[in-house]
Amino acid sequence: MGLLNDETYMRLALQMAESGLGQTGINPVVGCVLVKDGRIVGMGAHLKRGEGHAEVLALRMAGEEAKGSTAYVTLEPCSHHGKTPPCCDRLIEAGVTRVVVAATDPNPVVSGTGIAKLRAQGLEVSVGLLGDESTKMNEIFNKFIVSRMPFVTMKTASTLDGRIASKTGDSKWITSAESRGWVHTLRHQHQGILVGVQTVIADDPQLSTRGDVPAVQPVRIIADSQLRVPLGARVLTEQDRQPTILLASAQAPAERRAALEARGVTILTCGDGPQVDLTLAMQQLGEREIGSILLEGGGRLNGAMLERRLIDKLVLMFAPKIIGGGQAAPMNIHFDGYSKMDDAITLDRLRVEQFGPDVCITGYPLYKS
Amino acid sequence: MGLLNDETYMRLALQMAESGLGQTGINPVVGCVLVKDGRIVGMGAHLKRGEGHAEVLALRMAGEEAKGSTAYVTLEPCSHHGKTPPCCDRLIEAGVTRVVVAATDPNPVVSGTGIAKLRAQGLEVSVGLLGDESTKMNEIFNKFIVSRMPFVTMKTASTLDGRIASKTGDSKWITSAESRGWVHTLRHQHQGILVGVQTVIADDPQLSTRGDVPAVQPVRIIADSQLRVPLGARVLTEQDRQPTILLASAQAPAERRAALEARGVTILTCGDGPQVDLTLAMQQLGEREIGSILLEGGGRLNGAMLERRLIDKLVLMFAPKIIGGGQAAPMNIHFDGYSKMDDAITLDRLRVEQFGPDVCITGYPLYKS
Repeated sequence: MGLLNDETYMRLALQMAESGLGQTGINPVVGCVLVKDGRIVGMGAHLKRGEGHAEVLALRMAGEEAKGSTAYVTLEPCSHHGKTPPCCDRLIEAGVTRVVVAATDPNPVVSGTGIAKLRAQGLEVSVGLLGDESTKMNEIFNKFIVSRMPFVTMKTASTLDGRIASKTGDSKWITSAESRGWVHTLRHQHQGILVGVQTVIADDPQLSTRGDVPAVQPVRIIADSQLRVPLGARVLTEQDRQPTILLASAQAPAERRAALEARGVTILTCGDGPQVDLTLAMQQLGEREIGSILLEGGGRLNGAMLERRLIDKLVLMFAPKIIGGGQAAPMNIHFDGYSKMDDAITLDRLRVEQFGPDVCITGYPLYKS
Repeated sequence: MGLLNDETYMRLALQMAESGLGQTGINPVVGCVLVKDGRIVGMGAHLKRGEGHAEVLALRMAGEEAKGSTAYVTLEPCSHHGKTPPCCDRLIEAGVTRVVVAATDPNPVVSGTGIAKLRAQGLEVSVGLLGDESTKMNEIFNKFIVSRMPFVTMKTASTLDGRIASKTGDSKWITSAESRGWVHTLRHQHQGILVGVQTVIADDPQLSTRGDVPAVQPVRIIADSQLRVPLGARVLTEQDRQPTILLASAQAPAERRAALEARGVTILTCGDGPQVDLTLAMQQLGEREIGSILLEGGGRLNGAMLERRLIDKLVLMFAPKIIGGGQAAPMNIHFDGYSKMDDAITLDRLRVEQFGPDVCITGYPLYKS
């Protein structure tokens, strides 16, 4: 572990927190390490919504040893009664004397109160060590807790000329097996997957998470304004492990709605225009505590979500290919756009990676106009 | 320099060769280092077409010390009388006893004969050390010497949604100052710059190489089937340091041709179709010993060059921006394309770099269909 210091232990706590990514729903990922006399006496991570918080699990492991120890926590301990009792009280009761916190809790019912409570009880508290890393890890939670809107990651897989299929619709495969494997990890890190009905009609996808290990299956969400989804589509017939939600307009035919509801499908009515009101759709999904969505749309759904500023993160995968096709080949992003280059959406905090032969560009959109 | 061995000296020879990139026209870049008793006694690089070869310059520096030395040469020494006497003879005369060659010369009048000649005279010759690096450095020469066609690098600068302007035509600026600075280096490394006439009409560019240091100016080449270039365009009025060549169809109006020729412009007639025959154009440029071209076209010229397999290398610069614009915003690559994803052009030997905030993807096209 190299030099033992506060950063060493906080880094360990962050690593433990990271293991919970995609499993905690709208809860944050949190890790906690308890250290006494230079020895780790307890470790814990919040791994599933409704189950023990990181601090509680670490205290349980430490037992009597918690007394006089230092707690390294990646997120400010909670001070309120939620699904579990407040962690602050538990740390105080156990006799922890010092608490090192990476990031304060953006949750308005916690923010700062946890730290104040600990200090009021005489504990030494320091805040901010590796705070940026903790904040980045909880980007989903940080958005949801203040906006009640899902954090949306838009993922595209295109050629270098921005095509998601050839002019005749062939799209198997654009990216490599390595990239497609990684998409399953991405899916696993979100509570829902959103596609347009055209994708369901064209490809009849399962939209599941496949990998070497069992995984929580995300909810499948289909933007389907006029309820055109085929009744035999796999997203409807295979709902045992993974429910499906349809986003529709009030304009959608009543008999289609009835037929689908008879099959146990959830339909959210999002406005009464010809197209689903996507902002309304995100609000309704947020109300259902879907805190994160991976958007795997066609160019028009991707473009509409961007235009309405509903995208929080972009993951653009480019296969080193050029397919051409002029106007007939569908694009990864398609919308009316801006007149001035200065008004373009820019991507912040860019990360560039390679998966097999493919180039993956990740960034956070800054909306200007 | 670290451990002194054959590789150390060859790497130095390669570094010297590299300094000639863009200055040797259709000649290769070559570096030579002479070592005697563990000490460098001579160094040379071929820096300008018609001037001394690397071996000759290194021998001149070494003088009497060349006797009994080892020569590290990045390219097989020439055995034929070209603009200068054969380097093989010079090495033999000077008493060099061992020659380490990185790559053999693809030039059919040399290939292998230089090495054979040295061996016949009793010199010890080894071939292949850092050969891939030497070959890559001479990719322009390697193509031209066997095909008499220019090596064409296609450079695009687009948003992440593949646009080179907004729907209203705004394109200032897409990429960062860092990227635009680097483009001048790229231009410097080619003998010609090719654009479509539409770019000249829209932007009236200088198409020159700007930088902190004086540089050889590339020839400006305009694809202008119907000779629509404005007579007042800077590429025509500013020809003192940098000539301009127009590629036209035999269909182009005779009076335009006459007016342009009266201004001293070179016009190459490339077929008699409505559009310039680009293959014929490249052949004619090759005949004029233009061995390398940087293509900075719009989407249609880029696409047409790719379709005809005239592109040898792609440099795709992506600014982290999304501008949208649907069909109204021009694309970086626009052509009819392929039906099957498996038939797409793939890019080999991919390199990914960042210039400021921009991502630059470089690769070599493999044409399949």
